[in-house]
Formats: sequence, C-alpha cells, structure tokens
Amino acid sequence: MASLNEIIHQPVRLRIMAMLIALPAETQMKFTLLKETLELTDGNLGAHLHKLEEAGYLTIVKAFVLNKPQTYIQATEAGRNAFLEHRNALREILGGSHGKKEER
Amino acid sequence: MASLNEIIHQPVRLRIMAMLIALPAETQMKFTLLKETLELTDGNLGAHLHKLEEAGYLTIVKAFVLNKPQTYIQATEAGRNAFLEHRNALREILGGSHGKKEER
Repeated sequence: MASLNEIIHQPVRLRIMAMLIALPAETQMKFTLLKETLELTDGNLGAHLHKLEEAGYLTIVKAFVLNKPQTYIQATEAGRNAFLEHRNALREILGGSHGKKEER
Repeated sequence: MASLNEIIHQPVRLRIMAMLIALPAETQMKFTLLKETLELTDGNLGAHLHKLEEAGYLTIVKAFVLNKPQTYIQATEAGRNAFLEHRNALREILGGSHGKKEER
C-alpha cells in the first residue's frame, strides 16, 4: 500500500515543499515569498519550516543583504526525494486518470 | 489558492474516500473490505467513517444478511463532489506534469 509521509502531508508543509520543489535544485527561496504566497504569519511559517528542517528536508539560511536580515529556504536532496515519493503515493491513492502513473 | 478539505485530507479518510469513489455511484462497499484493505481495527475505521458521515460524505447502513450483521458504506453525492474538489486542489498543489490539470 502506498505510504504517505506524515511530516509532508500536513497541508501547510505540503504547500511549502511543493513551492520549493518547483525551483531548480540548489536554488533558494526567500522566507518572505513563502510567507506572502501562503498567507501565513512569521510564527506559523517558522514553526512549519523548523519541523521540515528537523526532518532534514530543507535548510534555513539567515543572511544580511544591504544591512537587512533576509532568510532563505532551500530544499535538500532528501527533501526533494521525500516530496516526490509522497507525491507518487498520493497520486496512487487519489486514482483517476492520472493517479496510477509513477514518475520522478 | 487551491483549498484543501481538512476532513478528507487526513490520510485514513483520504484512502476511505478514494476507495468509495472508485465504485460506480449508488454502489455500496462492505465495512469488512475497507477494514482489510486499509489494515485498520474496527474502532479506528468506525471513528473515521463516523467523521465522514457527520460531514455528509457517506452513509453507513447496517443490515442482516443470512442472519449475520453486515455494514455497508456508500459515498453520497456531496462526498463524491468534495473528494473530486479535494483531488483537484491536491493536484494543483503537487504540480509536476499532471498537477495543473483540472478534471471531474
């Protein structure tokens, strides 16, 4: 039976990982872009990012750009693989015309 | 932003609804088939079915067949629609080659 990843399945974290995975590998996304797109508070987004970081699925880099603090988020290789496995499992469960197709 | 249905998103309930929705409309599935396929206890499956019934997504019919109690589960029209909407939202979020396709 297709196995769902409980860390990634949570709705906010599913959206975070989907946004990160849509970028090319080794590419970072600004915290503020995630926050605005997902319409979350700093605290709520931060908590979900921390959970994903603990699982090894992303890295959080804090930097100063023109003397202003900026936070950048990047999916790890493990995070990309976990998301793609979860996506395949979901598609298998969801069924329908595209549900059975396995892809990476 | 695609909206996820929190009642259906829960992993066990997602699998239950996917199994019911794979049947033709007006078709019932035995409780025991759901239980065996999903590898759940009576209590656990019962609790999730109750939650879905409360939401109006399925009906639970208890009957006697050859003097033995049998329980049958059937997705309602509202349940089918809610599942299909949730599936479309998930596919939109998941992205990838089939993610953007809308279908009913």
